[in-house]
Amino acid sequence: MEMNEIFPKGQQLPNEWFSGNAFLTPLVAKDKNHEFSAGCVTFEPHARTVWHTHPKGQVLMVIDGNGFYQEKGKPAQPIKKGDVVNIPENVEHWHGASASNKMVHIAITNYKDDVQVTWLKPVSDEEYKDVYSH
Amino acid sequence: MEMNEIFPKGQQLPNEWFSGNAFLTPLVAKDKNHEFSAGCVTFEPHARTVWHTHPKGQVLMVIDGNGFYQEKGKPAQPIKKGDVVNIPENVEHWHGASASNKMVHIAITNYKDDVQVTWLKPVSDEEYKDVYSH
Repeated sequence: MEMNEIFPKGQQLPNEWFSGNAFLTPLVAKDKNHEFSAGCVTFEPHARTVWHTHPKGQVLMVIDGNGFYQEKGKPAQPIKKGDVVNIPENVEHWHGASASNKMVHIAITNYKDDVQVTWLKPVSDEEYKDVYSH
Repeated sequence: MEMNEIFPKGQQLPNEWFSGNAFLTPLVAKDKNHEFSAGCVTFEPHARTVWHTHPKGQVLMVIDGNGFYQEKGKPAQPIKKGDVVNIPENVEHWHGASASNKMVHIAITNYKDDVQVTWLKPVSDEEYKDVYSH
């Protein structure tokens, strides 16, 4: 079984929602106590989510490597091992690896009723390259 | 700043609730989206929580070292880096490091109204030694 430093690398995520090679290991599911699910996501270099929103927010805890978090209309924010991002509700954003390193984060994603995420358009190569122009 | 592999070691936790040397770095607080808080807890060898309960459960994600999780009346369960424990509501239990290694876990602790935990009696040295007798 291929491992990251801590958790298994898991199953590849669909290219409809993730550009490049991204993988998920589920860690905990919504249940009678948890109004969230949590998992470990590994992004290989260049891999990233498509633009998306969460109806009740999400927490990212970066546990390896480095990458970016960007909210629509704002500069991309470099994130690295040890960083925590508290993503607000209904804010269009993406996250992913840098061009040269993988990025591994735990994601804790709240539910609003039965919805966790609304997937939007891919982050274009131009948008991705733009994170290096600032 | 003293670091673990990923997060800062943080502030020492009170001996009223933690036997031995345990440390906390808060990672995310309860807010309008999160009905939980999350933090990184480091237990030095022999360190452990006192017996306690959570009114709406807790998730542990072990990110370094190894230790034990024990529910009252059951054998202690060895836990190590990469393990996830989904602790039920209102079950008396403790967690902590092994006698020879530290244990570092992320803890995601749900709130029920404004309560996350009820602290009970310390895990005695006899109870702690007993985890090695099975």
